[in-house]
Amino acid sequence: MQNSRRGGVDPFIVMDVMEAARQAEEAGRHIIHMEVGQPGTPAPAAARDALARAMQDDALGYTVALGLPALRARIAKLYGEWYDVDLDPGRVVVTPGSSGGFILAFSALFDAGDRIALGAPGYPSYRQIMKAMDLVPVEVQTRAENRLQLVPGDLEGLDYQGVMVASPANPSGTMLGKAELAALIDCAQGQGASFLSDEIYHGIEYEQPAVTALEISDDVCVINSFSKYFSMTGWRAGWLVLPQANIRQVERLAQNLFICPPHASQVAALAAMDADEELQANMQVYRQNRALMLEGLPKAGFDRIAPPDGAFYVYADVSHLTDDSRAFAREILDQAGVAVTPGLDFDPLRGSGTLRFSYARATRDIAEGLERLRRFMAERGFAPQAGDANP
Amino acid sequence: MQNSRRGGVDPFIVMDVMEAARQAEEAGRHIIHMEVGQPGTPAPAAARDALARAMQDDALGYTVALGLPALRARIAKLYGEWYDVDLDPGRVVVTPGSSGGFILAFSALFDAGDRIALGAPGYPSYRQIMKAMDLVPVEVQTRAENRLQLVPGDLEGLDYQGVMVASPANPSGTMLGKAELAALIDCAQGQGASFLSDEIYHGIEYEQPAVTALEISDDVCVINSFSKYFSMTGWRAGWLVLPQANIRQVERLAQNLFICPPHASQVAALAAMDADEELQANMQVYRQNRALMLEGLPKAGFDRIAPPDGAFYVYADVSHLTDDSRAFAREILDQAGVAVTPGLDFDPLRGSGTLRFSYARATRDIAEGLERLRRFMAERGFAPQAGDANP
Repeated sequence: MQNSRRGGVDPFIVMDVMEAARQAEEAGRHIIHMEVGQPGTPAPAAARDALARAMQDDALGYTVALGLPALRARIAKLYGEWYDVDLDPGRVVVTPGSSGGFILAFSALFDAGDRIALGAPGYPSYRQIMKAMDLVPVEVQTRAENRLQLVPGDLEGLDYQGVMVASPANPSGTMLGKAELAALIDCAQGQGASFLSDEIYHGIEYEQPAVTALEISDDVCVINSFSKYFSMTGWRAGWLVLPQANIRQVERLAQNLFICPPHASQVAALAAMDADEELQANMQVYRQNRALMLEGLPKAGFDRIAPPDGAFYVYADVSHLTDDSRAFAREILDQAGVAVTPGLDFDPLRGSGTLRFSYARATRDIAEGLERLRRFMAERGFAPQAGDANP
Repeated sequence: MQNSRRGGVDPFIVMDVMEAARQAEEAGRHIIHMEVGQPGTPAPAAARDALARAMQDDALGYTVALGLPALRARIAKLYGEWYDVDLDPGRVVVTPGSSGGFILAFSALFDAGDRIALGAPGYPSYRQIMKAMDLVPVEVQTRAENRLQLVPGDLEGLDYQGVMVASPANPSGTMLGKAELAALIDCAQGQGASFLSDEIYHGIEYEQPAVTALEISDDVCVINSFSKYFSMTGWRAGWLVLPQANIRQVERLAQNLFICPPHASQVAALAAMDADEELQANMQVYRQNRALMLEGLPKAGFDRIAPPDGAFYVYADVSHLTDDSRAFAREILDQAGVAVTPGLDFDPLRGSGTLRFSYARATRDIAEGLERLRRFMAERGFAPQAGDANP
């Protein structure tokens, strides 16, 4: 059977790193994982307990396509708690991860050939899902002075039917403030374009709370997930918030494309939403890790970084160290035993000069990884500045 | 935001029935559910136990995109056990339900505008998923003398890039024998078309085992799931088998479209595959229910039926009783308290004269449902024949 053209999406370059790391571990080496985009923690205990109970009492068959009503209501309540936004549960759609959310939103809002503007660097699957669905990603090179986020000026003169942003962003960790987000929403709505806001890292914020697009307009599509703040990556549960006028179409698509999100994951997710104590303990780890990274990376010689507002990544400009981030990441893995992600996954144009370091794992791993990076760079000839005591 | 054109898929008509049934139950009525396409049983105890253990020991983060290697290997082994087919685990792709399998297979094999031939009546989501993905379902009206399955003659003169069959089929329950399936595969391959075989009801067979397309050719795409025989609908776990030459493309798509199937569901599914005793007990219930249906439906007046080879449905021709199956289903719900599915979901052309009765639930419900149908039809004036003792 022939492979399709639209299915010919790019590979994740990080997969090569992960496979090389796996082989190194199989050969007995110890590897520090700074390449992974997921918490090392499991789902909150309350979530796992709730599912253990449900497995005894309930057949866990199909749910309705839009998700368990109690979960939709609890998600709506979160918008009151986090943002003081009054949200109708009828506008919430539970999805099989944010991945399923993208598939649903894109098929509900866009026709083949439609163009969607988004900033680079960004999550690589955005453009691959679009390609697989015959949509056209219009990638805009964001600027360092805009903290690698889109600004309305970037969109001038472009033809697009949708605009998508992420805040906090992957890989940069930067956020859009309310004014910046409002300006982009205005700009998209002025063009009659749909506005999509990927808010998957909300809850993982350090200096100030993230702003949801729903604080600004009801006529937007918000994508979120239980993967990151709620520490439930493998469960594949997420959600969309859409205008009421789009819900019926999304419901019919969800019935046909997915039947329903995984029932067990919905049960666990509902309980996870009240596990504040455990989730805040995870946040405390991210805060410690972030502080370690912001201190340790410059000392090691990775000093072209900006403090992330949210998420658990540091995106480093290494263009003074390499013009081939893929080879450089491989070198760091082989010599330092630290797996990191080459920027090419996030930005095919400029990513040959960038790396993403994840600090989602245990603090002792982060500390050990930073020490390994320091030694690696010292062997490469990097000399810390006089001000860097005890490098 | 505008709704897309391709997202404007048809509603499931059965959803109206289910909503009306829900309202009736809320108002205090007792309803027998013969509309649902899922077992009433939970996942096997061994599956739930395995997950309960895994939730204590494992963070259950992302798995690799193609699924847990142990699960892929176990699925490959099933083909030896069930069909005496030697299958390379590298050709198995674990998917988020068969729904996710369709999305993956369609995007890997077909480009926008490609035409896929399939028989009517059939599972309604086939054509809706195709529509949402800009594919063109070429629906062929199958014939009663072919037991509502496609035959090569049906495809003559048609232009298509794919052919899809289901055996056992939903809603008819009929199967394709090896010769019939081979003829269809030959026909598709002769046209250079991809061949897709939906085998989701395999394992639920009554007179003889179902034939997998893999017994005939390696150059096919098989879609299957843990939903039906393994009684795990809500878990959203299924699988594809593809030629080796298509795996790399499917892997990249799976990485981007889904990241991975639900980890918890994969753990449960792996254990379910060795829960023969419990699954065969479920089969014993389906066998009893089928026998009750084949005796009780004709006695009630639904005598234009064929014994199903597999699955848990009886598809009845009721064109002598109504020309509006939707209204008739509503009448049966209101007057008899039995929810059934109008054939229009499966066959927009001829389904106004058909109903699907599911016997997936507990035997006492099936017996009660048949008695209610008998009384309903008697009130409508149906008089059983003299030969039907104790109607």
